[in-house]
Amino acid sequence: MQRYFIKNTDIFENKIFIQGNDCHHITNVMRMSLGDVVIAIDEEGFLYQATIHAMNKNQVTLKILEKKTDNRELPCKVTMAMGLTKMQKLEEVIRRITELGASQFIGVEMKYSIIRLNKINDIKYDRWKTIVKEASEQSERNQLMNILPLTTFSSFLLLSKNYDLCLYAYEEFGKQKNIDFKQLLDQFNGKSILVLVGPEGGISPEEVNLLDHHGFKAIGLGPRILRCETAPLYIMSAISYSKEFFNEG
Amino acid sequence: MQRYFIKNTDIFENKIFIQGNDCHHITNVMRMSLGDVVIAIDEEGFLYQATIHAMNKNQVTLKILEKKTDNRELPCKVTMAMGLTKMQKLEEVIRRITELGASQFIGVEMKYSIIRLNKINDIKYDRWKTIVKEASEQSERNQLMNILPLTTFSSFLLLSKNYDLCLYAYEEFGKQKNIDFKQLLDQFNGKSILVLVGPEGGISPEEVNLLDHHGFKAIGLGPRILRCETAPLYIMSAISYSKEFFNEG
Repeated sequence: MQRYFIKNTDIFENKIFIQGNDCHHITNVMRMSLGDVVIAIDEEGFLYQATIHAMNKNQVTLKILEKKTDNRELPCKVTMAMGLTKMQKLEEVIRRITELGASQFIGVEMKYSIIRLNKINDIKYDRWKTIVKEASEQSERNQLMNILPLTTFSSFLLLSKNYDLCLYAYEEFGKQKNIDFKQLLDQFNGKSILVLVGPEGGISPEEVNLLDHHGFKAIGLGPRILRCETAPLYIMSAISYSKEFFNEG
Repeated sequence: MQRYFIKNTDIFENKIFIQGNDCHHITNVMRMSLGDVVIAIDEEGFLYQATIHAMNKNQVTLKILEKKTDNRELPCKVTMAMGLTKMQKLEEVIRRITELGASQFIGVEMKYSIIRLNKINDIKYDRWKTIVKEASEQSERNQLMNILPLTTFSSFLLLSKNYDLCLYAYEEFGKQKNIDFKQLLDQFNGKSILVLVGPEGGISPEEVNLLDHHGFKAIGLGPRILRCETAPLYIMSAISYSKEFFNEG
């Protein structure tokens, strides 16, 4: 069933009022009619099964049939941080980690980033938000992934104090130190994870020192070298695999 | 260090003879010189650290310094099967599952495939093999992923008898039957897995019946709906996570 992410203020008593792009989508793209049923999802992730009660070109009015609580979200909030790289790769990562359940994304300017913050004229946050919205609807999530503003490495380090577990993917280092991603993750019972994946060139030795100093743990992602845009997908899949199957069997 | 996949017949005594594209890559793309060191990998996955002993525009002669046995391959062979879909998506899946360690890929014509076998004029096996070769070198694999010819669903079903475990990703069905991917995989100790991911439209009820009849087990991939090109990456990541970390900790 088609899903629309709404603002809490769009709800009044047992009605939901939809305007803008989603109104256009319901009337012109999906060509829905009175009585058709959709799912609306509020900012807390609550689902409303609702029927089209009235519509004109500027507004669709839904009548709530049922409020649901089924939850498709990961049991822990994952913020995926990634060294700035080509915009096309960032977009692909944003789309895929939305599908895979990430809560937040943040692009970080790192030493080996081929793209520098002060050289980006046109950061397409609006485009990224559209990608997130579409991927969230398609994957039937309860929450939209949040996109934080691009940041410097030193500002990024300060985020660490807000998380229960801070990790960075650093293949060679991870192996040398024998730190086992699986052991760390399977034993983790906290509520929030911050993970950093470097850009193509990797993470510099100075950055590694700073990460260690700020309590980040180095992890390897298996014996093969993954591209920087594949590593976030591996990490999100592993978190889902580790945390989402216990109650299903 | 740059890696080149060679044929066993390219080796003679302690020399390796490289011609064709790899010769061009060494001389013109990488602009290497006498004495530079590369890694050559034979058809059994053995690694040779070797130095450039002689070179001209048609042939590079390597002298073997050391034969190595370090293995970057998954402990079980995974054949990833995917319902035929747009060529661009198939190519992306081929690239990413090569990175993630799959042994074989096979495209399967299924009921809801938008592309039909008899309508494909130009199957780009050569292009796919180049993608595999590049991704294998970059991810430092010992083996090239094998690409099987595209096939019909009925021929695909006959493959199942060659595998220790046969799975198909079918989200709703997997949930209804309460089959737990994690439990199946963590307890699996065999040598070979065959996994099928459907096309965009999913797997038809008739196909589900036939898969069940041929001993395939339905698995879910977590509570979110994954795109058909994301599901293979989730599966490969989960297999790596389940099977490659036990000896590292």
